[in-house]
Amino acid sequence: MHRYRSHTCGELRAADVSTDVRLSGWLHNRRDLGGILFIDLRDHYGITQLVARPGTAANEALSHLTKETVVRIDGKVTSRGAENVNPELPTGEIEVEVAAVEILGAAQQIPFTINADDGVNEERRLEYRFLDLRRERMHRNIMLRTAVISAIRHKMTALGFNEMATPILTATSPEGARDFVVPSRLNPGKFYALPQAPQQFKQLLMIAGFDRYFQIAPCFRDEDARADRSPGEFYQLDVEMSFVEQEDVFRPIERLMTELFEEFGGGRHVTSPFPRIPFREAMLKYGSDKPDLRAELELVDITDVFEGSEFKAFAGKHVRALPVPDVSAQPRKFFDGLGDFAVSLGAKGLAWVRVAEDGSLSGPIAKFLTEENVKVLTERLGLAAGHAVFFGAGEVDEVSKIMGGVRVEAAKRAGHFVDGEFRFCWIVDFPMYEKDEETGRIDFSHNPFSMPQGGMRDLEEKDPLDILAWQYDIVCNGIELSSGAIRNHEPELMLKAFEIAGYERETVEQEFAGMLRAFRLGAPPHGGIAPGVDRIVMLLADEPNIRETIAFPLNGNAQDLMMGAPTVLEEARLRELNISLRKPPAAKQPAAE
Amino acid sequence: MHRYRSHTCGELRAADVSTDVRLSGWLHNRRDLGGILFIDLRDHYGITQLVARPGTAANEALSHLTKETVVRIDGKVTSRGAENVNPELPTGEIEVEVAAVEILGAAQQIPFTINADDGVNEERRLEYRFLDLRRERMHRNIMLRTAVISAIRHKMTALGFNEMATPILTATSPEGARDFVVPSRLNPGKFYALPQAPQQFKQLLMIAGFDRYFQIAPCFRDEDARADRSPGEFYQLDVEMSFVEQEDVFRPIERLMTELFEEFGGGRHVTSPFPRIPFREAMLKYGSDKPDLRAELELVDITDVFEGSEFKAFAGKHVRALPVPDVSAQPRKFFDGLGDFAVSLGAKGLAWVRVAEDGSLSGPIAKFLTEENVKVLTERLGLAAGHAVFFGAGEVDEVSKIMGGVRVEAAKRAGHFVDGEFRFCWIVDFPMYEKDEETGRIDFSHNPFSMPQGGMRDLEEKDPLDILAWQYDIVCNGIELSSGAIRNHEPELMLKAFEIAGYERETVEQEFAGMLRAFRLGAPPHGGIAPGVDRIVMLLADEPNIRETIAFPLNGNAQDLMMGAPTVLEEARLRELNISLRKPPAAKQPAAE
Repeated sequence: MHRYRSHTCGELRAADVSTDVRLSGWLHNRRDLGGILFIDLRDHYGITQLVARPGTAANEALSHLTKETVVRIDGKVTSRGAENVNPELPTGEIEVEVAAVEILGAAQQIPFTINADDGVNEERRLEYRFLDLRRERMHRNIMLRTAVISAIRHKMTALGFNEMATPILTATSPEGARDFVVPSRLNPGKFYALPQAPQQFKQLLMIAGFDRYFQIAPCFRDEDARADRSPGEFYQLDVEMSFVEQEDVFRPIERLMTELFEEFGGGRHVTSPFPRIPFREAMLKYGSDKPDLRAELELVDITDVFEGSEFKAFAGKHVRALPVPDVSAQPRKFFDGLGDFAVSLGAKGLAWVRVAEDGSLSGPIAKFLTEENVKVLTERLGLAAGHAVFFGAGEVDEVSKIMGGVRVEAAKRAGHFVDGEFRFCWIVDFPMYEKDEETGRIDFSHNPFSMPQGGMRDLEEKDPLDILAWQYDIVCNGIELSSGAIRNHEPELMLKAFEIAGYERETVEQEFAGMLRAFRLGAPPHGGIAPGVDRIVMLLADEPNIRETIAFPLNGNAQDLMMGAPTVLEEARLRELNISLRKPPAAKQPAAE
Repeated sequence: MHRYRSHTCGELRAADVSTDVRLSGWLHNRRDLGGILFIDLRDHYGITQLVARPGTAANEALSHLTKETVVRIDGKVTSRGAENVNPELPTGEIEVEVAAVEILGAAQQIPFTINADDGVNEERRLEYRFLDLRRERMHRNIMLRTAVISAIRHKMTALGFNEMATPILTATSPEGARDFVVPSRLNPGKFYALPQAPQQFKQLLMIAGFDRYFQIAPCFRDEDARADRSPGEFYQLDVEMSFVEQEDVFRPIERLMTELFEEFGGGRHVTSPFPRIPFREAMLKYGSDKPDLRAELELVDITDVFEGSEFKAFAGKHVRALPVPDVSAQPRKFFDGLGDFAVSLGAKGLAWVRVAEDGSLSGPIAKFLTEENVKVLTERLGLAAGHAVFFGAGEVDEVSKIMGGVRVEAAKRAGHFVDGEFRFCWIVDFPMYEKDEETGRIDFSHNPFSMPQGGMRDLEEKDPLDILAWQYDIVCNGIELSSGAIRNHEPELMLKAFEIAGYERETVEQEFAGMLRAFRLGAPPHGGIAPGVDRIVMLLADEPNIRETIAFPLNGNAQDLMMGAPTVLEEARLRELNISLRKPPAAKQPAAE
């Protein structure tokens, strides 16, 4: 028999009754029923119930052990009998009568319970992460992560992509966030940067001719913690393809996401194909470029209706209407409640009307609407009995944000929100440029390295604010999983695009010398995307805190409480690296009385 | 038709003749035969021959393009005709008559040729790595690496292992080499360390109950460059298993390696099962714990034969004999040549004898051998006509090293070396302790965290120098792929093991507080291994330089010449990180006259 186990703790079934077995695992739980010990023995694979009869050596040995002790037991599988079967446990039809016990790993009193959620705080859990990970939920989350990443790799390979690791010790690149840096011992005074993303490397792989690349890529940004981003490092499914247009990128990614979310989403439906929604349409209809399509309501732009209106609250402002069916019978507090919600988003209030059985409008602002207004709105909003309409007016960004939020909240409160589904979409046609409202200057609105639509002709002839980019986002249930783009691989087109945004040719040549050099030595058209692996796992695990899906995350202060990172360095090491510490900024003295 | 291609450049066959096709790729080569242009168009998938007839627009367009320009062509597939078929190209039966050409990515004059090895130096190749990677050999190496790593993941998953990523921003750990460090902005004056290996994390994953872990793990050591290790970062197949003994680790790894090397070894045979060779036996038989078993000769320890001998060169020394069959007829220069080789390893010379047809010995030291010597040696070495015997004598380490080297070299020169095979072995039973020859003190010989064989009883009762560890190496063709061990997971056993090596209990408790704390909260028996991925790929690709198997390696000075890493940091960034640069050590002034 194997030194430690003949079976795992998740393996034994009714068919194994009468077999002599050996199991190893953690002492998960113990109950004493009139001297008979019932013990749940736990390992990675499951839980098996052990029985130790009074008066046996096994009973004696097991009665003194602290929870979480690791033991090996020898015993015989017995049937639990119909009345004692535990249908929630795969091993629930049997138990093991213990004959011998060996302690493999003693346990002192553990600082929090494993077999129940005792509400211990997160810092403590992170300090003892190796215990926290024994808990069923955490164990399941980490295994889900493992399975998801393994499936991504498998599916991407099947789709013809080649995984390649890119350097982690590299140079800073213009990604916009703050780099983590590494002093070089061999090159005194110089520093490596950890990659914020392998953007340049993946483009260079295309220029090197590798055609279809992917990587589960570790990325590093020295940013403060957020609920959906672990401080320090995170992973993205980094993808790049050559000789492609936008739809060529969408096809494999859409297939991957559909399969992935169907396979690991716990039965939640994936609506497919994913709609392509132009950025401007998304901003009008959903007030957001990250629309949660589970909310089955849409905003309508009615700015023009009130253009010369006497109704000062709307006249001359951006006005959005949100028609909501089947709510006119709701009590006043439904409307007030949504008003409060709008206020929490920064609105001054929330105007609304409701449509009575006879088609007439009532509500706070009904009296300000002219007959013509009502006629146009009824037609444009498709109003009918039972509808209510919520209105927002103001600056375009503000009204979009507020009414976008109200849209989702109203859908939830009025039963127009379809939970339990994954609703993806592609946001496309991002504008290449935007105007800085204060300075009036044209600047890139998103990624300056995306290919502008319409090529050189449009760059030369069109109003920059009308130029769109081959740039896209993939969004699921209101969460942006990734941006992506067809890259601008033509130096002259890139220089022109930068010129429009006010950059001198020489500046661009200097700043992006490396990429321009590569583009000038035979670069294929290429594009890609990089969905966040952590966010995918969060969505699938239905966990709002990213740390619940990572085995060993840093805490919010970017510390590893278990390993004690970061730590002070010895002076000799600092010297070897040619750096020294500055004095920390002196704490302010309390003012003298 | 697709914007860029209907087929790849590796796809068209005789069955496609007469099809209208669109291809995109790099202008690999161009030949002008009486005005007809023959062009090799290359992409990731292969090469297709294009034809452009004189007088056509296509001919005009293609005749001016520099090599490595990226073009899209439209054309018709035609048969090459039997006499022009190129059997070395999968597309060799066809060519494409070009009708239209579009330049997708212009190319300036490239700094070295892609379609032939022009012997450009490595620094230049690394500076233009994106071009270098277009070369067939490099492209093949990187794709081999991709395929090997993908297969490892697939096989490990099939073997029941779960891949989990461990932190890259972490704390220093006692691995022995120098850490790369990262200053923490949020924790001024403190530093993360990049992992030299995820050793502690994988053990913590076992303590957390994950049972079978693996990872293609990025590891970082701030060491100077070596041929078989890239400076900066490298990858290992990190593996750990719970509830296992040594053979439980060997089984899946042996299966993995056998399958991997059979699949990707280009037909080279893998001898399996892998022999288990105790460390001491390996040192005696092969003079090395990394034996190249392709050399089918073995050393014999004949120290005792000359113990009280009059032959001063051997008497009282460690003496090794290397019997070599079928060489006694070799000319004198064969023997002298091996002697020179031994001298190159540090020997003073190489003693030898040969066995004549009548069994008599001749050669430089024959006269020093007594009749009794000859009798014993003939028996012990199994000497027969045609044999020669080489001898080494001296300190044990030196004679092992020299005769170990002579063993392999003699095998190569005398036809006892089986090339074209992968011969693996496990080296087992490493001694736990060794004696420092100078101080006479007992210290750990290898890994202090390995489980000693024989448990507490042997630690208390045995001579430390006789205690073996559950520690092992996996070696292939003389290259060590990895060490591994069953870990010492019992705190009392660990403290005792350190006590024998002269460490105070308090020191150990302090130094390894984190791991000891974890071991005291229910740790399972566990063990693992971590074969170097880079070395595996080097062996499979038959490349002696590790950089030839990595897409973007640092050069020997730990610089990325393409990206310009490492770089200087702005003062503002240094300040933000709470560090400043020291002055580099002043260059010595030339002495005054």
